[in-house]
Amino acid sequence: MRQQRLLNPTLRDVPGDAEAVSHQLMLRAGLIRQLSSGIYSYLPTGLKALQHIQTIVREEMDRAGAQEMLMPALHPAELWKASGRWDVYGPELMRLQDRGGREFALGATHEEVITTLVKDEIHSYKKLPLTLYQIQTKYRDERRPRFGLLRGREFLMKDAYSFDRSASGLDVSYQAMYDAYVNIFTRCGLQFRAVEADSGAIGGTDTHEFMALADVGEDTIVHCPSCQYAANLEKAAGLITNKGTSSIDVPHAQPTKVHTPGVTSIKQLSQFLSIESQHIIKSVAVQADGTPVIVLLRGDLEINEIKLKHVLGVDEITMLTESEITALGSVAGFIGPIGLASVRVIADNSIQGLAGAVVGANEADYHLQHVDVQRDLGTLTYADIRNVGQGESCIHCGHELAFAKGIEVGHVFKLGTKYSEGLGASYTDENGLSEPMIMGCYGIGVSRVLAAVIEQHHDERGIIWPKTLAPYSIHLLTVQVKDETQMALSEEIYHALTRAGYSVLWDDREERPGVKFNDADLLGFPLRLTIGKKANERMVECKERRSDSAYELNVEQLLTHCQTFFN
Amino acid sequence: MRQQRLLNPTLRDVPGDAEAVSHQLMLRAGLIRQLSSGIYSYLPTGLKALQHIQTIVREEMDRAGAQEMLMPALHPAELWKASGRWDVYGPELMRLQDRGGREFALGATHEEVITTLVKDEIHSYKKLPLTLYQIQTKYRDERRPRFGLLRGREFLMKDAYSFDRSASGLDVSYQAMYDAYVNIFTRCGLQFRAVEADSGAIGGTDTHEFMALADVGEDTIVHCPSCQYAANLEKAAGLITNKGTSSIDVPHAQPTKVHTPGVTSIKQLSQFLSIESQHIIKSVAVQADGTPVIVLLRGDLEINEIKLKHVLGVDEITMLTESEITALGSVAGFIGPIGLASVRVIADNSIQGLAGAVVGANEADYHLQHVDVQRDLGTLTYADIRNVGQGESCIHCGHELAFAKGIEVGHVFKLGTKYSEGLGASYTDENGLSEPMIMGCYGIGVSRVLAAVIEQHHDERGIIWPKTLAPYSIHLLTVQVKDETQMALSEEIYHALTRAGYSVLWDDREERPGVKFNDADLLGFPLRLTIGKKANERMVECKERRSDSAYELNVEQLLTHCQTFFN
Repeated sequence: MRQQRLLNPTLRDVPGDAEAVSHQLMLRAGLIRQLSSGIYSYLPTGLKALQHIQTIVREEMDRAGAQEMLMPALHPAELWKASGRWDVYGPELMRLQDRGGREFALGATHEEVITTLVKDEIHSYKKLPLTLYQIQTKYRDERRPRFGLLRGREFLMKDAYSFDRSASGLDVSYQAMYDAYVNIFTRCGLQFRAVEADSGAIGGTDTHEFMALADVGEDTIVHCPSCQYAANLEKAAGLITNKGTSSIDVPHAQPTKVHTPGVTSIKQLSQFLSIESQHIIKSVAVQADGTPVIVLLRGDLEINEIKLKHVLGVDEITMLTESEITALGSVAGFIGPIGLASVRVIADNSIQGLAGAVVGANEADYHLQHVDVQRDLGTLTYADIRNVGQGESCIHCGHELAFAKGIEVGHVFKLGTKYSEGLGASYTDENGLSEPMIMGCYGIGVSRVLAAVIEQHHDERGIIWPKTLAPYSIHLLTVQVKDETQMALSEEIYHALTRAGYSVLWDDREERPGVKFNDADLLGFPLRLTIGKKANERMVECKERRSDSAYELNVEQLLTHCQTFFN
Repeated sequence: MRQQRLLNPTLRDVPGDAEAVSHQLMLRAGLIRQLSSGIYSYLPTGLKALQHIQTIVREEMDRAGAQEMLMPALHPAELWKASGRWDVYGPELMRLQDRGGREFALGATHEEVITTLVKDEIHSYKKLPLTLYQIQTKYRDERRPRFGLLRGREFLMKDAYSFDRSASGLDVSYQAMYDAYVNIFTRCGLQFRAVEADSGAIGGTDTHEFMALADVGEDTIVHCPSCQYAANLEKAAGLITNKGTSSIDVPHAQPTKVHTPGVTSIKQLSQFLSIESQHIIKSVAVQADGTPVIVLLRGDLEINEIKLKHVLGVDEITMLTESEITALGSVAGFIGPIGLASVRVIADNSIQGLAGAVVGANEADYHLQHVDVQRDLGTLTYADIRNVGQGESCIHCGHELAFAKGIEVGHVFKLGTKYSEGLGASYTDENGLSEPMIMGCYGIGVSRVLAAVIEQHHDERGIIWPKTLAPYSIHLLTVQVKDETQMALSEEIYHALTRAGYSVLWDDREERPGVKFNDADLLGFPLRLTIGKKANERMVECKERRSDSAYELNVEQLLTHCQTFFN
């Protein structure tokens, strides 16, 4: 491709509204343009990279035995009503009516469509197991679209669905997808971790998220540097140690009221009493499916709402209002576990064995100090209901856990029978009995992978494409296009490389050399070949984008060199 | 691929609601399934054929110098309002609101999006000409979706847009697309005609439709069997000859009233007077942008509304009501050109020189006979405002024109400056002057091509795929899967052919041979290889789907034979 003709508008300046590096670079390198919030056009160079990812995804999915198909984006509302998600999904599901007033959803995911299709077409155990996938556009009306392709409203996804006869069959299908995902992300050049995730209210068992490691990531990963353990923050568990006592502790002292006028937050209290927040017991009053519950945990830690929901077996948790707290016989900002007889209490493991602690006194402007959990709080129900905090240890090997930020690029999920039972997808087994199919679902954010790759592969000058995804492998740059010798040699090389099967972008633009070199760095193809003054000697300057190493080659050596470089 | 595992549900019976052969066969062969009216899922086998078409389209578009990109389906309403099409497009344009109440259209076509993008990114003549294309899903809420993929509401389209500096530049871009389309449809195995079409109110000049010839087609093509002339019925012109006079004609007789009680249609009048309808002059009273006009044409012919609009220079034509006809001094059913002084009259060329004709008398239950157009109707304005009728001659070579039915599979269109002026896409020329870009647009109904191919390539047993599009090239069929010799030989052949690069579907199902042979004919891959009783002699039965020729080969000859067959 000759660059003079290519629609590849590069920008010198960082666009103001682009926060993420990948977003900035994709705009600057002319890969994408925004049409509306969270909605992008792929320009020719960006589309090429996206297509390379799709090719890798197809190859690995096919190799894993999955069959490609293609489902529509317009879903009749009846399907989503049948699964119950028409109401549950909320405003993220985009909806419209056709000219006859029939309601449709724009597919945010395809469980309903695929399950209904398989229900109609597969009836016998002989056709199972079956894994189907598609690469298709999804629509999710994100509350806050941002970071370019990382969180869009119209995006490209690979979604796969497996149908099995048994839980052990699902294990096999799940593992095949897990392995395919490892291959896909590895081939895309991503640094990633497969982390345990919460399976939510669906009732599935295993679920893993594939996280590309990047500071811009919106997910927190907890992982063990010593063993294989990794989980997202929603799911991660750790071991906590309560060390020492606070500076105001008095051994064997009984709970004593202390006047703390206007001190309602952990931070204020810690400053007011000059103690660390881990010596305070935080009491949080929540409404769990309509019933008030007091949640106790160490003052320096945060409640994990998903864990709490599981432990309490509820769907919704909200904070109690001030008047509801008053109705419990307490005061907002001064809640504590002592003297609250009639309310359910759940305690995080982090306060187990704590002594010399401070709690709210259930009275305005007062706390209690010298509280010994075991002695003073009676028999508590303990559970893991916190986010893992800094300094906690691995539950498998005891090593201190580490934290990282990740971009969720893939997700594998054991669905079980939620959809097959809800939508009636059953098969007849060897004995003539009807059984619901056991399902799994598996997603890859194809367009998000593109952004994640750039988050990991760039420097201050621009993108550094992995060879597998580069829109063009070679950037051929003619310094002076008005110099006949340079142009003739460039043309010769362009045709030789193209014939040999390399994808080459030839910068034949009438631009200053500085502009061309800057654009080449910004676009970041693996190998840059510059044809300049030494064209009359048939010498080419090679520069490798990733290593930055530069060297000269005679034209006759070029093809052999490319074979080695790209092998 | 092993058929036992493939999601390829074939049906024995013709589905009741499928009228078109392609629709019936695509359902029966398990290529597609309907999700909702005009909305289909592609099952694995159908998707493969669709992807082959996409590959051909990409190769030919790239070869023609077009650049692939990808635009979103969600379009902000503002763009469609800016072009004026938000109101004009009507209920075919699907619309929705996002969570913030912003209006969007689901892209029915992408002129607005591409023109806005090019306007923002291209400013200099140096970057022109430019042709961009995408293969993308389109949404049109058809009033009457039908014929499966031939008229759907969500469908796959290749749309391209060219941007030029001059009309002659557009000619070059247009011709490149025209040639690419010829290559694409030829490679897809389609019998087609490029026909002249009407360019509508957009003010473009040239436009051609690519019509796949098929009886199910909803468009009528007029073509000359002797020269290259071909046009769709909207656009086609012909030469008409008025032969002889009617049986009731009296030479030199003056117009005479004839009592025709209750005779208000051409058909009735022709029977009542025992004359052919070509001796009657039809007088049609219409409202053209609010002004009444009387249209005269030969009784056996039909008004062509598009031609009439062009000739009158109006946007809308409706029929006059009975009371409006009365207001003109006439009577519905008895309108005629004589005695209607105050109304504009336009005459089709077909009545030029007609004598001894019958017209309405503008009086209830009366017509006038013995009318000589030249003598009695004064100076008329003549134009071509009819649909070409049977028996008309080619305007280029005089040969009698022929009629055929076609499916519109492609359309090339010179847009001119409608969108570039409306949306402000201009460039700066060599002299620093700002000029609007000159645009063309070019569409291919990718999913419709799939259906059109099947309309042309089938027999009573099933589909007969062109080699270029067949989902699998070879159907390997094992007669008895419980026979170890047959299975071993099948496996050997399957691996050998797959290694050699052929796509093979291996029917390894435990089904009766009759079921397998019927399915193989229905699926219609080019070459069927049957492994049966002669497996112990290493003999294979070959059958070519298209020619029906069958022969036996030794396994050792197979690869060479395939090379020849598929070369």
